[in-house]
Amino acid sequence: MNDSDKHALENNFGKDRGGGICGGMSRFKCVCAYDGTDFCGWQSQVTGNSVQDFIERRLEAIFKRKIRIHGSGRTDAGVHADAQVFHFDAPWRHSSDALLAALRSGYPDSLQILKVSKVPENFHARYSVKGKRYVYRIYLGRATPKIARYRWSLGEMELDLEAMNSAAKILIGTHDFTAFSANRGAEYKDNPVKDLRKLEVVRRGREIKISTEGSGYLYKMVRMIVGALVEVGRGRLSEADVARALDLKKRSNLFQAAPAKGLTLEKVFY
Amino acid sequence: MNDSDKHALENNFGKDRGGGICGGMSRFKCVCAYDGTDFCGWQSQVTGNSVQDFIERRLEAIFKRKIRIHGSGRTDAGVHADAQVFHFDAPWRHSSDALLAALRSGYPDSLQILKVSKVPENFHARYSVKGKRYVYRIYLGRATPKIARYRWSLGEMELDLEAMNSAAKILIGTHDFTAFSANRGAEYKDNPVKDLRKLEVVRRGREIKISTEGSGYLYKMVRMIVGALVEVGRGRLSEADVARALDLKKRSNLFQAAPAKGLTLEKVFY
Repeated sequence: MNDSDKHALENNFGKDRGGGICGGMSRFKCVCAYDGTDFCGWQSQVTGNSVQDFIERRLEAIFKRKIRIHGSGRTDAGVHADAQVFHFDAPWRHSSDALLAALRSGYPDSLQILKVSKVPENFHARYSVKGKRYVYRIYLGRATPKIARYRWSLGEMELDLEAMNSAAKILIGTHDFTAFSANRGAEYKDNPVKDLRKLEVVRRGREIKISTEGSGYLYKMVRMIVGALVEVGRGRLSEADVARALDLKKRSNLFQAAPAKGLTLEKVFY
Repeated sequence: MNDSDKHALENNFGKDRGGGICGGMSRFKCVCAYDGTDFCGWQSQVTGNSVQDFIERRLEAIFKRKIRIHGSGRTDAGVHADAQVFHFDAPWRHSSDALLAALRSGYPDSLQILKVSKVPENFHARYSVKGKRYVYRIYLGRATPKIARYRWSLGEMELDLEAMNSAAKILIGTHDFTAFSANRGAEYKDNPVKDLRKLEVVRRGREIKISTEGSGYLYKMVRMIVGALVEVGRGRLSEADVARALDLKKRSNLFQAAPAKGLTLEKVFY
């Protein structure tokens, strides 16, 4: 896919794209982690309580001017990240380590800048993405307070993992995932065909971990897939129902998006 | 120690003591866990945002009357509990499991009721305590957001664990721990002699865990001990300084209380 295709596909974000770098500016790639519980998501909001808002305020304090950051993609309110990636252009003439030191202070415990590195100006945190890994955590029972923020507690029940993994296999591959997405409004048009490379359900004690890697995801797609797989695990949906939903390419009432708190963006691949 | 001695010693709490149980009432012992970050501590406050306030509001909703709970002791704002114990008297004629089911709903994720059991009326969550185990967690570096709420992040540094454990040995035993306490105001008079049965520093990777078991603790005593041990680990205090501080039985400026967020009440012994 060339640059102009990408631009056409992702045209809603074209305005934020930034274009070429002006003289004296360098491009920096950053990795950050956050506990999404108390943020209203990644994307800048008028409330100023998004992850992006916190980081841009810090950049403004350092550079005495507004600097826009470009994330690898949004995460919804309540979704966590172990390694979200963003880039920005800034007139910084010292080392990346010095920029990391300046950039990583002044946040609440729930947000941390992990890495800063100088990158070529053709790197773009969103358009250069090759894939992402998400992990969704479920607890069979009541998760204790220290872990409840990062898990969907299903209460005392059992899930049929074999059935869940069989249904997961149906979803692996390149498909139109419209059935597993939520409507974000007419202005958000994304190509509904995504390549899901991995979707795996593993259990350890009362913990269930659903890991997925894919080229990209539609709005709420991971949470919709988890919601469907849990219905399969409870015996309320069959593998055939999942296959049928995928084929229909239409949103249904058979399953709901799983709660945001169980979801963590683990890695962005470039 | 007989009951009247205890009453004299702990006379500040005498008002809350509850006395005998009226007809039709039973006494229940409860175990609860909380992430202390967003509570203003255990003890009831006018803000209504203490752990006690949340539980008493739930009890009032169940029993349609005000029911006072009695904790094993207070925890400060920001301190966590894996197993805090409290008791209350209530006119409940069904099973303890049914009371647990009624009592454990309606809280934020940060508070969870783990167990309810009917106990004899001479059980008292505070006066029957035989000891408590606390754990304090330190991170050498920057703890990531998902664990930072429960750890004191010291940044990139090393601590001399051998020196810390040697200093810890000085504190084990029955001592007047006034040097390792903070002043809570003249109305709080507690016997400063406590029996510290265990105080141990262990390391695993960048994590340091300081565990302590004792008959009881003065106000902020665990956090003051941790503060002193970290100064020893950094080489800014010697074992002799710690021994001298203990002997002096006076608060000093040699060390400060470690932050509340690293501390967890792990177990109350009866």
